[in-house]
Amino acid sequence: MFNVKSIEEVKEILVENFKDSYNKFELIDSVDSLNRILYEDIKSVENVPQFNKSTVDGYAVKYKDILGASDSMPILLNMIGKVEMGTDAKIIVNEGECVYVPTGGMLPNGTDAVVMIEKVEEIDKETIAFYTDITFNKNVILKADDVKKGDVVLKKGIILRPESIGVLVSLGIKKIKVFKKPKITIISTGDELVDIEENLKMGQIRDINTHTLKAISISYGLEVVETKVIKDIKEKITKSAKKAYSESDIVIVSGGSSMGEKDMTAEIIDSLGDPGVLVHGMAIKPGKPTIVASCGGKPIIGLPGHPVSSIIVYKVLIETLLEKCFNFEIEKKRSLEATALSNIHAAPGRTTYKMIKIEEINNEFVFAPSYGESGMITLLTTSNGYTIIPIDKEGIVKGEKVRVNYFY
Amino acid sequence: MFNVKSIEEVKEILVENFKDSYNKFELIDSVDSLNRILYEDIKSVENVPQFNKSTVDGYAVKYKDILGASDSMPILLNMIGKVEMGTDAKIIVNEGECVYVPTGGMLPNGTDAVVMIEKVEEIDKETIAFYTDITFNKNVILKADDVKKGDVVLKKGIILRPESIGVLVSLGIKKIKVFKKPKITIISTGDELVDIEENLKMGQIRDINTHTLKAISISYGLEVVETKVIKDIKEKITKSAKKAYSESDIVIVSGGSSMGEKDMTAEIIDSLGDPGVLVHGMAIKPGKPTIVASCGGKPIIGLPGHPVSSIIVYKVLIETLLEKCFNFEIEKKRSLEATALSNIHAAPGRTTYKMIKIEEINNEFVFAPSYGESGMITLLTTSNGYTIIPIDKEGIVKGEKVRVNYFY
Repeated sequence: MFNVKSIEEVKEILVENFKDSYNKFELIDSVDSLNRILYEDIKSVENVPQFNKSTVDGYAVKYKDILGASDSMPILLNMIGKVEMGTDAKIIVNEGECVYVPTGGMLPNGTDAVVMIEKVEEIDKETIAFYTDITFNKNVILKADDVKKGDVVLKKGIILRPESIGVLVSLGIKKIKVFKKPKITIISTGDELVDIEENLKMGQIRDINTHTLKAISISYGLEVVETKVIKDIKEKITKSAKKAYSESDIVIVSGGSSMGEKDMTAEIIDSLGDPGVLVHGMAIKPGKPTIVASCGGKPIIGLPGHPVSSIIVYKVLIETLLEKCFNFEIEKKRSLEATALSNIHAAPGRTTYKMIKIEEINNEFVFAPSYGESGMITLLTTSNGYTIIPIDKEGIVKGEKVRVNYFY
Repeated sequence: MFNVKSIEEVKEILVENFKDSYNKFELIDSVDSLNRILYEDIKSVENVPQFNKSTVDGYAVKYKDILGASDSMPILLNMIGKVEMGTDAKIIVNEGECVYVPTGGMLPNGTDAVVMIEKVEEIDKETIAFYTDITFNKNVILKADDVKKGDVVLKKGIILRPESIGVLVSLGIKKIKVFKKPKITIISTGDELVDIEENLKMGQIRDINTHTLKAISISYGLEVVETKVIKDIKEKITKSAKKAYSESDIVIVSGGSSMGEKDMTAEIIDSLGDPGVLVHGMAIKPGKPTIVASCGGKPIIGLPGHPVSSIIVYKVLIETLLEKCFNFEIEKKRSLEATALSNIHAAPGRTTYKMIKIEEINNEFVFAPSYGESGMITLLTTSNGYTIIPIDKEGIVKGEKVRVNYFY
């Protein structure tokens, strides 16, 4: 029977059993790495910029040449040339001379600051009047000021964002190692389930879990190897679970984990390999009949059959697996303090995940519980987040401010 | 020259010119609709559930039959059968009778409540003892209780989430209309720019913007038709912009929009079609040299060349286009109150978008400005968000609590 463990205990068991258990990588093009997980620290192979660079359109000078320049006492310098964008500034600037430099252009040898074009007067083609002085290195990014050769610019485990791709590209790094997408198989079991392609007979319902859990898996950056809807026939489930376990890094079996007549999932999972079932029953509502197993070093998770319960338990356990065991960064969703619009009861002796609708009214965040059994579709359409009521708290009182979490 | 407009004015101009301007849809499989934008309201074509359904494993009864049952005065009912999962419960239950029903199973005719299996005693195969009474419809989801035929279950314009897919599947909706992904072309201009595949010469830098803006576009659900890096040659830019404008719903041209020597983007964009340039200059820092144009009803946006500036302006304007003009839902990122760890100066007369690093220390959120010119890579690697300093505010004082926004 159930030997119910707290969420924290289950998470610890996951960490103990699967810490650093995933270590597959692949080499891909940096420009195609959006949302992938970086497999190793990225060090810069060059200095950035590779030359002293102007941050404005203006005149490169020796700053000492225009010390004391002002509106009433302008200083004139000799304009000896222009730097073209994207070219080597081969001009050498001596005392009393200046050179035009565009934004991003290379500073010529001998100059140490740039005066913005708006602050000078071009007297004639060879003479520029400066009406203000300037500090050393003003409007200049020095060579290697941005990134030094050897600096770690991106860290192992991060999600690669558009900005990260920009960093890789700017450093000329064409290929990078990313974690291979962990493979997952999702099996949904139940005699009442039919796939969306089949016709519904009286007493049957369409399988939801393979589709929602597949979509969530994709959102988490997993590769879904296969999804399957299976009737509660022991041989069939065993066969599919064995195949899944040999092909995937993570196996999910939803349904059949509670104590009803045909609930045989725990037994089947336990038979797949050693040590087998580690957890059967988690002190969470909804989601009590959760199974965690380790077979040959791979996690096999049994989820409750109700769509909402399966989503919640999936999030709790797969996030832990990815973040704490696979060392992946997980995207953080919005989470804030909001005021309860009604009383909410908690399940005694369990951590309650309550589906809620969060709204912002006049800059104040409020929320109401979504009503319905965890099997109901309405819960999915009317909720945009959840709140967690700790195991030792009786519930939430109307008007109370608590932390709420958006799904997205 | 610049006729600088506030961000709010520019947003209004976008709405005036492009409101409801995008209306392309396609029919796709519901199960493949993750993160797409729904094109029409989805109404349920059936009742859910289609039958009265048990939420527990237990015995379906007429609730009146066990009124008054208690530990000391159990009531015995005659067990006349079992409902199998996924089948039509054809049994008819009369007074004094009960039937076993699994979770999710169909209630037989004549029953109106279910008693959990844990609360009864099976005296023999035909006799069940009830030790507690129960209210009408207890542990039952009534037919159509979840969703009524004709109910709007998902609204036009939403991002389709895993849960939305679950809803569609559960209702047997196989195909749905979603907005076609708006097509975007991204052109980056600058004599100093070379593509990542080319070798860098002295004075040159690698183009970043096509790659970052492409990745952001993908994140927003756009289809990137083409990206291109072009030297500042008027004919080349004109030719590419014309092609882009004929093939795409949105065109982005980064670089060449400030007032330097070769900045000709505004002129080129203006020549593409009527009414042409609507905005040249936005009161934002960084990002002042922003261009907004309408050519033949399509938005063409000129972005500053600096990577960080282009990202910020892209976010501000493309989000407005998608949300206010194309009626798409945009994913909200985390935004919260945090304490400034140092003084931050604002740009006078402009709304300042300051790149920052937000950290949570002992449950308190704090942030520090990221240092560096908007062209610097360090700004990309050290920032995880931004704060907005309004146009009429001088800056942020150390210790001040202000709203900060995460990028992800």
